[in-house]
Amino acid sequence: MQTEPVRIGVVAPASKLSPDLAERLNALTQSLYPDKPPVLRIHPQCFETCGHFAGNDAAREAAFLEFANAADIDAVWFARGGYGSCRIAPALEKLGEAARRKLYLGYSDMGFLLAGLYARGFHVAHGPMPADLIRDGGETAVARALRFMCEGAEDALEPAFAAGARCAAFNMTVLSQLIGTQLEPDLTGHVLMLEDVSEYMYRIDRTMFHLTSQKSIRRVAGIRLGRCSDIPENDPDFGENEETVVKRWCEASGIPYLGRADIGHDIENKIVPFG
Amino acid sequence: MQTEPVRIGVVAPASKLSPDLAERLNALTQSLYPDKPPVLRIHPQCFETCGHFAGNDAAREAAFLEFANAADIDAVWFARGGYGSCRIAPALEKLGEAARRKLYLGYSDMGFLLAGLYARGFHVAHGPMPADLIRDGGETAVARALRFMCEGAEDALEPAFAAGARCAAFNMTVLSQLIGTQLEPDLTGHVLMLEDVSEYMYRIDRTMFHLTSQKSIRRVAGIRLGRCSDIPENDPDFGENEETVVKRWCEASGIPYLGRADIGHDIENKIVPFG
Repeated sequence: MQTEPVRIGVVAPASKLSPDLAERLNALTQSLYPDKPPVLRIHPQCFETCGHFAGNDAAREAAFLEFANAADIDAVWFARGGYGSCRIAPALEKLGEAARRKLYLGYSDMGFLLAGLYARGFHVAHGPMPADLIRDGGETAVARALRFMCEGAEDALEPAFAAGARCAAFNMTVLSQLIGTQLEPDLTGHVLMLEDVSEYMYRIDRTMFHLTSQKSIRRVAGIRLGRCSDIPENDPDFGENEETVVKRWCEASGIPYLGRADIGHDIENKIVPFG
Repeated sequence: MQTEPVRIGVVAPASKLSPDLAERLNALTQSLYPDKPPVLRIHPQCFETCGHFAGNDAAREAAFLEFANAADIDAVWFARGGYGSCRIAPALEKLGEAARRKLYLGYSDMGFLLAGLYARGFHVAHGPMPADLIRDGGETAVARALRFMCEGAEDALEPAFAAGARCAAFNMTVLSQLIGTQLEPDLTGHVLMLEDVSEYMYRIDRTMFHLTSQKSIRRVAGIRLGRCSDIPENDPDFGENEETVVKRWCEASGIPYLGRADIGHDIENKIVPFG
């Protein structure tokens, strides 16, 4: 337990947060910590709109840099996934010392920033975001993230990490799309956890071909498969499920398959600190 | 004009061909060349089914190797795209000398094999496949491929190639998914043509981030954009079209944007020999 309230800054490098969700986030935080609530600062950029995005690239980059470089913020909590955080990758070259003394938490599209931050020695974790409040029972996921940030709650952690493994976790499509870029971290010796959502099985298969063919990925300690949810129906039937697919590519590439991981686009999504 | 009929072997490394399309292909070939038709051998593997694929991996690999290594075949014509050719990539290590004395023609998912073949010094071209007969007016596309293989028809060629540029052409998603793998060719100094189909604009944007961030891709002479067709509607509207997206990533990465290319998932798809 920290003696001072944790100071959390929320920014949205991809899609926007609705004011309604922001209200629910404030209410949940108050109800969890009625006596000494964390300081929750939701950047106004979270509510901006520019086409697909929560504001244009400049606005999203500026908000991220403002909170990441702020000395009085302990954790940057990404509001929501969607798509767009790779477009503000140049921001990573503008982070100062204060940015090293905090945690960055999110998942899905935020994997682009988690990867690039981790590659540069920052503290990151894969886990729930405020927008998980959209899900049925989403308070469970969001409360888990708050308990992790405010109390370091052990039961919020993914079991393999809790058991002492050096870990990293990604949406597999996002990891595939940052391979070979300036965002790719060195995952040598890590347990690599992968999850995905709304991808056809043939795409999961193709992504796993791409990932397991990389020399860099072949240096991981092993792969654990999180949940792949909302897989559209393949016509004709693909003939394999996600675990069969991942096991097969692991075997073909000599990467140990270590079993399942308790992560995914759902309310059970556990927290995976990197490293 | 060759004096002997060109001998074309059709195999299906991804999805299967229907017997009806095979009949139509034979009929079209006869009607185009009534006096001295090319020898058209459609491998029975083209009609096999194994879940998503035209036969299991072993069957697809065996058919490809049989025709690629055959001394009496001048061109291996891939029957159809879909998904699956990356799964028979190990076949590339089993090609003999006869395989070097022929052409390989296809596009879409066949980009995995075109890439790996080109990386190993084989003769490949991006262009129409027998399954294009499914399209309205598809005979135009398939006849173009036949005229290229049988007559070396100049008007079948993509204009930038015809004008003398060193070229390569890919489905952008497929190229993205082979970056960093054993299939990636050296595209230094090439005009790189990219097309896509049925991808959301945010995915086109993400794929272009991935591609233009690669050191290897930054060595191309420039990028030409083919057609991106059947783009699903983005909600909210993405705010940019495919050319704006590609131009922006080219500018950000220092890759010259050279304009449009006459390729795509359609009957106008011109032929791009690599190199």
